[in-house]
Amino acid sequence: MRRSAAAVAVMLLVAGASAPGADAPNVKPRTMADVLAASKSSDWRTLDPQNTLYLELPSGRVIIELDPDFAPHHVANIKALAHEHYFDGLAIVRAQDNFVVQWNDPDHTRAFGNAQKTLAAEFSRSANGLPFTVLPDPDTYAQEVGFADGFPAAREPRTHLAWLVHCYAMVGAGRDNDVDSGGGTELYVVIGQAPRQLDRNVTLVGRVVQGMEQLSTLKRGSGALGFYEKPEERTPIRSLRLASEVPEAERSHLEIMRTDTHAFADLIETRRNRRDEWYKVPAGRIDVCSVPLPVRPRP
Amino acid sequence: MRRSAAAVAVMLLVAGASAPGADAPNVKPRTMADVLAASKSSDWRTLDPQNTLYLELPSGRVIIELDPDFAPHHVANIKALAHEHYFDGLAIVRAQDNFVVQWNDPDHTRAFGNAQKTLAAEFSRSANGLPFTVLPDPDTYAQEVGFADGFPAAREPRTHLAWLVHCYAMVGAGRDNDVDSGGGTELYVVIGQAPRQLDRNVTLVGRVVQGMEQLSTLKRGSGALGFYEKPEERTPIRSLRLASEVPEAERSHLEIMRTDTHAFADLIETRRNRRDEWYKVPAGRIDVCSVPLPVRPRP
Repeated sequence: MRRSAAAVAVMLLVAGASAPGADAPNVKPRTMADVLAASKSSDWRTLDPQNTLYLELPSGRVIIELDPDFAPHHVANIKALAHEHYFDGLAIVRAQDNFVVQWNDPDHTRAFGNAQKTLAAEFSRSANGLPFTVLPDPDTYAQEVGFADGFPAAREPRTHLAWLVHCYAMVGAGRDNDVDSGGGTELYVVIGQAPRQLDRNVTLVGRVVQGMEQLSTLKRGSGALGFYEKPEERTPIRSLRLASEVPEAERSHLEIMRTDTHAFADLIETRRNRRDEWYKVPAGRIDVCSVPLPVRPRP
Repeated sequence: MRRSAAAVAVMLLVAGASAPGADAPNVKPRTMADVLAASKSSDWRTLDPQNTLYLELPSGRVIIELDPDFAPHHVANIKALAHEHYFDGLAIVRAQDNFVVQWNDPDHTRAFGNAQKTLAAEFSRSANGLPFTVLPDPDTYAQEVGFADGFPAAREPRTHLAWLVHCYAMVGAGRDNDVDSGGGTELYVVIGQAPRQLDRNVTLVGRVVQGMEQLSTLKRGSGALGFYEKPEERTPIRSLRLASEVPEAERSHLEIMRTDTHAFADLIETRRNRRDEWYKVPAGRIDVCSVPLPVRPRP
C-alpha cells in the first residue's frame, strides 16, 4: 500500500521499526516508540482531578489540564465558574480555520456567584525557581523555549520572566482591549498553526490533553472571524466540570509524560533527529510546538 | 460583546481600526487591512489556470495552486494524471489530527496512461537566480526562510539550495521509503502545526489557496495514522481537474498577492508588529508559516 511521507514515517515510528542511522551504522536508532516503551512509571504523572476540566459536548468529552503555576487566579476563577455550572448550556460560538475555536455566553444572561467576571492579566510569571526543560534550537519568537511542568513555555533570561506559549491545543482566556478584561468566562483553544503573536498578550490557562479532534473538526463559522452567523450552528456545551467534582466512576484516568525527566529528553532527541527508515534528512532541530506531549490511560 | 484575544485583534484588523503605536503616538499605525486596501493591481497576480487544480468534493471546490518552479516533473505528472481523470472517483483515505489529510487510489485499480507512477524526488532546487523575499527573523529549521513566487520557502546560502516548506495548506506528493517512490498519485495537505521535519524529505507541489476548511474539518480517521477504518468513512473525490481543462464558465477566478512587492513587505511588517489596539506586546517577529498569503476574487 502506498502511503504518504508522513504515513510511512509515523507507522514505522509506531511499530518501532527503523533503519540504521547514518552515524551509527550497526546500531538501530531509537524512535519515540522505543522511548515510550522504555519509560518508567516515574516518567509519568497522573492528571490531577483538581486541575482537570471535562468539556462535555454532544460528540463526547474533551479533557483540559489547567496550569495554576502560570495563571493561578484565572485557573481558580475557571474552577469557581465550573463549580457554579456557569458554562453548562452555553455554546461554542466561533470556529476560525487555522486559528481558534471559542465558547462563551452569547446572550450575556449568566449570573455570577463567587466567580469573578474579570481578573488582572497573568501573561507571564517569574522564571526564578521555575523548573524548565530548555530546547537547544532557535525559536523565532523567544530567547528560550521549552517545557515547564508539562506545558510549552518560553523564558527570557534578561527579564527573568517565563510564559506559556500558543501551541496547538493550548487553552486561553479571551479578553477585550483592556488587558485586565479577561477572567475565564470566555475560553478559546488553538486549532491551527501556533499563533505565537498572541504570547504575552492574553492569559493562557491550560491545554487540551484529549479530544482535540472534537474541536478541530467543527464546522467553521461563516461570519467575520469565524463566528457562527446562526445560533443553530453553534455546538452546545452540555457541561464543563472540574474532574474532582465528577463522580469517581465517571472520571477519565490519564497519565501525562513528565517533561523534566531523562526519558523526555530522549523523546525530544528522537524527534529532533528522526532516523526512521523513511527520513532521509533528519531536521536536527525541533520547534517547541512540534514536540509531542504523550498522554496515556492510567495503567 | 466579549470576544477572545484573537477575535478582537482580527476584528480590528479587518475593520482597519487601531490605536496609536507606542513608537508613533500621533500616527495611526497601519494594519494588514490598510496594506491590502492600498495595494495596486500590480501587487496581485492572476491564478494561472495551467497551474491550478480543482479538487471537487461533495462539500464543494478546493483550489490548489501548483508550483512548477520547485517541482517541475511532479507538477507535470500531476497535470497528466488530472488530464487522464486519474483521481476522479478516488477518495480521501486519511485525516490525522494536527497533521495531514491524504488521498489516493485505495484499491490500486487505476490504470496509468501517459502519466508516471513514480518520479525522481524534487526535494530542493538551486537558489541561484531564484527571486526570494527573505524574512528577517530566525527560523528553527533553516538558515533563511521567506517567499519565492508566492510560496513559503527556505534557502541555504552555504549549499545554494532552496526548498518549499511545510506550512498549513501546503500540498505534497506522498512516497514510500525510497526517495524516488513518489510521483503525485498520492497527495497530502497539511492541516495542523507546520510539520517542518518533512522539509527536504518529501516533494511539495503546491498550496491550497481556497477551500481549506473542507479538508481541515473532515472527521479524523480512527485507524493508525488517521486512516479511515471503513471505506464508507472516506470522502469521495468527484473529480480533480486542471482549471484550464474546465470550461471557462465553471472556473473560479482568483488573484494571489505577489510576494516580491513593497506591498507584501509592508504586509509582513504589519504582521511582525501588530499595533491593533488589542495587542500590548507586538511580537516583533514572525514565523514563515504565520505570514498570510492573501487571495481575493479577480476584480
